[in-house]
Amino acid sequence: MMQVYTFEEGSKEMRELLGNKGAQLSEMYHIGIPIPPGFIITTKACIAYLKKKKIPDSLKEEILSALEDLEKKTGKKFGDASNPLLVSVRSGAPVSMPGMMDTILNIGLNDEMVETIAKNKSKQRWVYDCYRRFIQMFSEVVLGISHGEFEREIEEVKKKAGVEKDHQLGAKELKELIKHYKVVVKRHNAVIPSKPEEQLQKAIVSVFSSWNTPRARKYRELNKIPDDLGTAAVVQAMVYGNKGKKSGTGVLFTRNPSNGKREIYGEYLMNAQGEDIVSGTRTPNPIKNLKKEMPQLYSQLQKICRKVEEHFKDMQDMEFTIEEGKLYILQTRTGKRTSMAAIKIAVDMVKEKLITKKEALLRVQTSDIEKILHPVIDPKAKYTVIAKGLNASPGAASGKVIFDTEKAAQLGKEGQKVLLVREETTPDDIHGIAFSQGILTTRGGMTSHAAVVARGMGKPCVCGCGEITIDSRRNRCRIGNIVIKEGDILTIDGSTGEVIKGEVPLVPPSFTPETKKILTWADEVKRLEVRANADTPEGAKLARKMGARGIGLCRTERMFNEANRLPIVRAMILAKNRKERMKALEKLLPLQKRDFKEILRIMHPLPVTIRLLDIPLHEFLPSPEELLKEIEYLKDFKEVMKSLQEFPHILQLLDPKLQVYLPPIEKFLDDINKKKYQHLSEKLLQEKISMLEKVRSLEEVNPMLGHRGVRLGITYPEIYDMQIRAIYEASAELIKEGMEIHPEIMVPQVCTAQELKWVFKRVKKIASEVEKKYEIKVPIKFGTMIEVVRACMRAGKLAEIAEFFSFGTNDLSQATISFSREDAEKKFLPLYTKRKILQDNPFSILDQKGVGRLMMIAIEWGRKTRKDLKIGVCGEQGGEPSSIHFCHRIGIDYVSCSPFRVPVARLAAAQAALKE
Amino acid sequence: MMQVYTFEEGSKEMRELLGNKGAQLSEMYHIGIPIPPGFIITTKACIAYLKKKKIPDSLKEEILSALEDLEKKTGKKFGDASNPLLVSVRSGAPVSMPGMMDTILNIGLNDEMVETIAKNKSKQRWVYDCYRRFIQMFSEVVLGISHGEFEREIEEVKKKAGVEKDHQLGAKELKELIKHYKVVVKRHNAVIPSKPEEQLQKAIVSVFSSWNTPRARKYRELNKIPDDLGTAAVVQAMVYGNKGKKSGTGVLFTRNPSNGKREIYGEYLMNAQGEDIVSGTRTPNPIKNLKKEMPQLYSQLQKICRKVEEHFKDMQDMEFTIEEGKLYILQTRTGKRTSMAAIKIAVDMVKEKLITKKEALLRVQTSDIEKILHPVIDPKAKYTVIAKGLNASPGAASGKVIFDTEKAAQLGKEGQKVLLVREETTPDDIHGIAFSQGILTTRGGMTSHAAVVARGMGKPCVCGCGEITIDSRRNRCRIGNIVIKEGDILTIDGSTGEVIKGEVPLVPPSFTPETKKILTWADEVKRLEVRANADTPEGAKLARKMGARGIGLCRTERMFNEANRLPIVRAMILAKNRKERMKALEKLLPLQKRDFKEILRIMHPLPVTIRLLDIPLHEFLPSPEELLKEIEYLKDFKEVMKSLQEFPHILQLLDPKLQVYLPPIEKFLDDINKKKYQHLSEKLLQEKISMLEKVRSLEEVNPMLGHRGVRLGITYPEIYDMQIRAIYEASAELIKEGMEIHPEIMVPQVCTAQELKWVFKRVKKIASEVEKKYEIKVPIKFGTMIEVVRACMRAGKLAEIAEFFSFGTNDLSQATISFSREDAEKKFLPLYTKRKILQDNPFSILDQKGVGRLMMIAIEWGRKTRKDLKIGVCGEQGGEPSSIHFCHRIGIDYVSCSPFRVPVARLAAAQAALKE
Repeated sequence: MMQVYTFEEGSKEMRELLGNKGAQLSEMYHIGIPIPPGFIITTKACIAYLKKKKIPDSLKEEILSALEDLEKKTGKKFGDASNPLLVSVRSGAPVSMPGMMDTILNIGLNDEMVETIAKNKSKQRWVYDCYRRFIQMFSEVVLGISHGEFEREIEEVKKKAGVEKDHQLGAKELKELIKHYKVVVKRHNAVIPSKPEEQLQKAIVSVFSSWNTPRARKYRELNKIPDDLGTAAVVQAMVYGNKGKKSGTGVLFTRNPSNGKREIYGEYLMNAQGEDIVSGTRTPNPIKNLKKEMPQLYSQLQKICRKVEEHFKDMQDMEFTIEEGKLYILQTRTGKRTSMAAIKIAVDMVKEKLITKKEALLRVQTSDIEKILHPVIDPKAKYTVIAKGLNASPGAASGKVIFDTEKAAQLGKEGQKVLLVREETTPDDIHGIAFSQGILTTRGGMTSHAAVVARGMGKPCVCGCGEITIDSRRNRCRIGNIVIKEGDILTIDGSTGEVIKGEVPLVPPSFTPETKKILTWADEVKRLEVRANADTPEGAKLARKMGARGIGLCRTERMFNEANRLPIVRAMILAKNRKERMKALEKLLPLQKRDFKEILRIMHPLPVTIRLLDIPLHEFLPSPEELLKEIEYLKDFKEVMKSLQEFPHILQLLDPKLQVYLPPIEKFLDDINKKKYQHLSEKLLQEKISMLEKVRSLEEVNPMLGHRGVRLGITYPEIYDMQIRAIYEASAELIKEGMEIHPEIMVPQVCTAQELKWVFKRVKKIASEVEKKYEIKVPIKFGTMIEVVRACMRAGKLAEIAEFFSFGTNDLSQATISFSREDAEKKFLPLYTKRKILQDNPFSILDQKGVGRLMMIAIEWGRKTRKDLKIGVCGEQGGEPSSIHFCHRIGIDYVSCSPFRVPVARLAAAQAALKE
Repeated sequence: MMQVYTFEEGSKEMRELLGNKGAQLSEMYHIGIPIPPGFIITTKACIAYLKKKKIPDSLKEEILSALEDLEKKTGKKFGDASNPLLVSVRSGAPVSMPGMMDTILNIGLNDEMVETIAKNKSKQRWVYDCYRRFIQMFSEVVLGISHGEFEREIEEVKKKAGVEKDHQLGAKELKELIKHYKVVVKRHNAVIPSKPEEQLQKAIVSVFSSWNTPRARKYRELNKIPDDLGTAAVVQAMVYGNKGKKSGTGVLFTRNPSNGKREIYGEYLMNAQGEDIVSGTRTPNPIKNLKKEMPQLYSQLQKICRKVEEHFKDMQDMEFTIEEGKLYILQTRTGKRTSMAAIKIAVDMVKEKLITKKEALLRVQTSDIEKILHPVIDPKAKYTVIAKGLNASPGAASGKVIFDTEKAAQLGKEGQKVLLVREETTPDDIHGIAFSQGILTTRGGMTSHAAVVARGMGKPCVCGCGEITIDSRRNRCRIGNIVIKEGDILTIDGSTGEVIKGEVPLVPPSFTPETKKILTWADEVKRLEVRANADTPEGAKLARKMGARGIGLCRTERMFNEANRLPIVRAMILAKNRKERMKALEKLLPLQKRDFKEILRIMHPLPVTIRLLDIPLHEFLPSPEELLKEIEYLKDFKEVMKSLQEFPHILQLLDPKLQVYLPPIEKFLDDINKKKYQHLSEKLLQEKISMLEKVRSLEEVNPMLGHRGVRLGITYPEIYDMQIRAIYEASAELIKEGMEIHPEIMVPQVCTAQELKWVFKRVKKIASEVEKKYEIKVPIKFGTMIEVVRACMRAGKLAEIAEFFSFGTNDLSQATISFSREDAEKKFLPLYTKRKILQDNPFSILDQKGVGRLMMIAIEWGRKTRKDLKIGVCGEQGGEPSSIHFCHRIGIDYVSCSPFRVPVARLAAAQAALKE
């Protein structure tokens, strides 16, 4: 078996054997790009070496023979001072792992040879430079001596010489430096072999071994690269960018990696070797300067760029060297790029007919789409991260830190940029979140309230940042010994979880024409429809903007939570009898109807799936702790009131929190004498006490499995009746206007067909009443959430009534895995994913083997009953690419996710169809 | 189609058409039992009538022709005063519904005929008695006039005549009574037809209609009898027990319905008609008196009893009439019996070779076994009997005295223990009886309504307790000079007839030899093994006593909760690091080991499945409310302490709750001066505060889906390690003793194979350590609970590691249906079962369509991986008969239930096998 290949013998199909670098060099050779000749030692040889820790004789022979071949091609001789062949050894894995593994240049020199060569004055500086570089690299890579030790020496020599940059050192100083370097090596009791063959062999072994350095292992783990690939070693004849003013070296991208523009983009340095650019010791020149400096060579470079790109059909990241005016390409690989560039390049290359639309769709990552939809921190900005939490909702935001929800809402409304910082958020904070630039919480996971709401609103959010402790009494928080007061500026990056002190420049999101183009192409090929979860007219507008093909989940409880409605909802809950409840519901009916009408109008003619009330009633009431506090206040208030009548001057001492109950002070004092407030506070107190009783009576041990969804609907049929009527009347009025609408009613938490029948009976009754009233047919689809496991088992029966299913994968996952999301993410889930007991957080990424299996059963049984059963997914996971792929495979018709995730989902759905 | 059948034409195969009563009469005819001749109008005729509300002419004709036939057979003539044929009309449904439907006797008389017959002095009293009975029955049944109105008249006439009992009234008084009755009828503007044919037809219609009375409907609902069966009407020539001293009537059981003894058991009254016995207006004589009174007739009766029993192969409940010394059997049916009697009769009949063992097993109801397990009064208890009645239905019960049926039902439904106390009961009281712990009546015998119904329901009942007088107006009763008010507690013992004031400790009864026999037979035929859930040595002993074939669920957390262990468990939970935790666990190890050893020893050589810790840690800690209270107390305590040093005399005022922290007062005062307690209280306070913090940190939103089971085991591996080691060491020591044991380790809350692998790895490690230490092999099976839905989906994978599965149907049901049991049963589950949205409470009776379906999938996939996978069920439902049948059908190997349910489960398992 051949263990060594020349570039002539290689090709891109041999990537696995020759590594990426080797394969690319071979390809460049075949299309006539000027590259220095060389050969590749295969990944198999590497793997064999790693097993036996020994280079077999057969390999040594092959290397020698390849070396002879190289001597022939270059006309130089390895180890011959009169015409020395120097080589580089570079690692090259089948998958690019940039910067992860080792390179050694200028192999083939020793003291004796250097002195011989240095006799030629014109080569003096060059050869000392080469040799000192070789000693340093070999020592670092093969002997493991630290970089810093050599840097210190070079700094000293530069200081002595009175120069700033390495390349300003002359031959004499470099010769001196070599001496210093040798002292360093000696200090480590190490030896650099003087025989070039031995140098070469040690370098190869070292490259092979670098496959298993901890940082390489870590990189592979992070990037899911198998450990058994091994790396190839590329041995190449050196060309020299450090041979004077006509020599140089550079790196370039064939297109702008930042914005995707079609232009050569890169940097170069004259009289330097590649490492000088990478290390940043000298500031390189932009590549356009080369056009002036060496116009012919630049034009050759342009041609090469075009040729290489056309060959590899992707933007390339290349290294080149100019040796005394002659251009060599050292390597080429697919270039890394920003998300915006990735999209633009993909779209442009379709235009240029380099790739097809399908290829473009597969080339853009869903994460690219995600990133460009949110403001991000300017890549050029310099900043210090002071804490790190979970990257709960992507995008970056800066603002004044505010700890109080109401205040955040207030200031936000006034147009100030605020950042809401809370331990965790509850539905009461929605208002504050809505008017903040971003949210930072100290507790809670990826699916905590703050995270879910923030993603829904497209706000950046960093969650569970435990390093921060909030002292709400003093209106400040602390991170280590940094104190952040209310009003101080922080920046958060929801894509990385970073928290930064002060303001950092951001790059605004851009829905570029290219993005629109790629998503349009995605829509053409995807089979899975993408809808959005939206509860408000604003949400609906956003959904359309993001390209949703309907609303898959319109949560009616969010409408209940609006500030002006909550009192009515509470009156409904606190009603002592059906009559009182009906009164409250009558007030809600026109409000809900208006909501539905607006949303249906915005979405027409797309479908809108409206879910009847799901959440348990106690979520609309304040918490017992809150109420207890209020009651205490009111009791105090009564006391204060008494005192006030006797000593009105103590009014100044009144707790400011009590003042919300009071009118202007003068009037108040007047009223007190009329004993007006005495009565008021007593009434309020009684109200709060009875509300506390109700809250207590609604308390549940396991609210997730509690009195909610259709169970609530069956217990208080008036509530569902009101909602159903609102949907029908809203629809009837729009149909009368001549509008094409597709409303759908969805019942939550269904576990038995009886429940569905029960609701359906009421729907039919109300439908016929409304149809009679408006004298018009009102066709509305009727379906069910599938979020209770039993519903999966009864799918066949449910499909007799339901025209569509919508998997509520949030609740279904909780029930299937018996994990309470909130508890699990706080307690054991991090340990579970860390130990690989679960591969992923099942609330972010659908658990295909468990929950997915159940879904497959439900789909099969449901469609057995009703062949054309429409099936959707409306949980968090509906916007996650790998989950979308799974949904596509198991025959789901649509996913529904938060509007901001719709574009990602559209691309993911297209990719799923293409990969089928 | 024939609508009328004579007894000669009928047979027991025609039960559906002729009703039970008709079929039985036909059978008796065929085996030569003396019965009055008669005919049957079919159930089909009834159903037709109920549909069209009209008796068709064809039926009228058939009835007339049957009547003619009857005249021929009796030699009497319908409507002919000179030789009158009187008939009875009785309802008779295919399934016996005792007391539920109507009967009218003495049809065929009118004013004119009565006067004619009364001319014969010897028949005077008889005919008036017959006529007044006819008027009363016809009025009540056909005309719907209330019983009370006639009772008032009869009371008045008796008072006037100065007699106490009805039968003491002479012809004159009866004639007077008839007049009074007619006034009652007139008052209602009602008419009793004078034409006998018309009387008959109305009576038949009325019997047919009685099928649909609310109480009959209710009875059918309770007993799951279909509504479309209809009832037959049996028309039979009257024989007269009221024809003087040589006449009489009685009811009997061919065996003792209370204890099953083979003896004629019953009551009779001379000169009476059947209703006199049933209504309880006269207290009848025990049947053994008849042996003396009419020895020949008694011997004839004995022979008949044996013949009928041999024919029907079951104990019979018969009615008979003696007309002037001649014996007639009026009806026979399978006799209701107590559970104890049912078991004894079944076993005896096998001995007597009347039935086979299989028949015996199918004849005994699982509810019989359940009922005989009802508690009896603790033999060691001291108590005073305040009254004594008839021991009408065995078992003892305590409860609040309630006199009103509706109220009893109401409170009983709410879960209160009530005792229904009535003068006598009627079918209208069924509801109240069903929700009471027991029944106490002041009138009526062993076959009174209360007694029959109570035995049927397995409720303790004391009947005819004449010492008690009820004052229903004042809602109280009196026994001698003891006054019992509504709500006071009484205890009754239905096995002795004793009535006891207050509550008395109860204990379960021991098995009778017959029960043991039937259960031994059950064990011979059942395929499903029955194990018990037991956590303590006492539980294990009980399990063996109840015939469990092992322990299917031994919950280790119960062992943690013992008073002397809780402090160690708490120390373990509050441990600040692994080292502290290990210290606490080292103390727990020998305790758990001792538990396991004892239990394994008791159960040997049967299997014992030990479940590793399941419940969340916070369940071992006090609640936050408790702790807050304690902290408040300790703060007060500190204050008190300060004051005490200054004013020691206030010690007397100290809150007694604080005194638990104090030694005797003198010493205390001494110590205070040394400031000893100041320190102590501070330390305690800090301890409590830190415990409160821990409790708060462990709080969960949905504990049912929280940090528990194997999730806990993975987070704190030391805990499981300790338990595993305790099991292995206990087993090793017993094996060393030469004992055959079968311990099994079971992991709770498993949702992924990774979890199981993780625990299994530790088990193997500890096993090898213990085996090395004891130098012996310790074979212990390793398995998993299947109580998380995901585990069902991953059953195939789990079976790669688990040697057995045990379905935890409690948690699995909660997760599958998304009902939190505690919340659901308090909030919406009652409504759900009431509205038939769910057929049953799924936590009592396995939800076969939902949870059961999942189980079937898990079994199939599990056994696909491991053919010999042993599968059990260890939830509540494992002791419920219909669930056991299901478990049998789906291939479960064993069920495990609470020890008291083991006998029921054994029988249910046998019946499941027999019905296969």
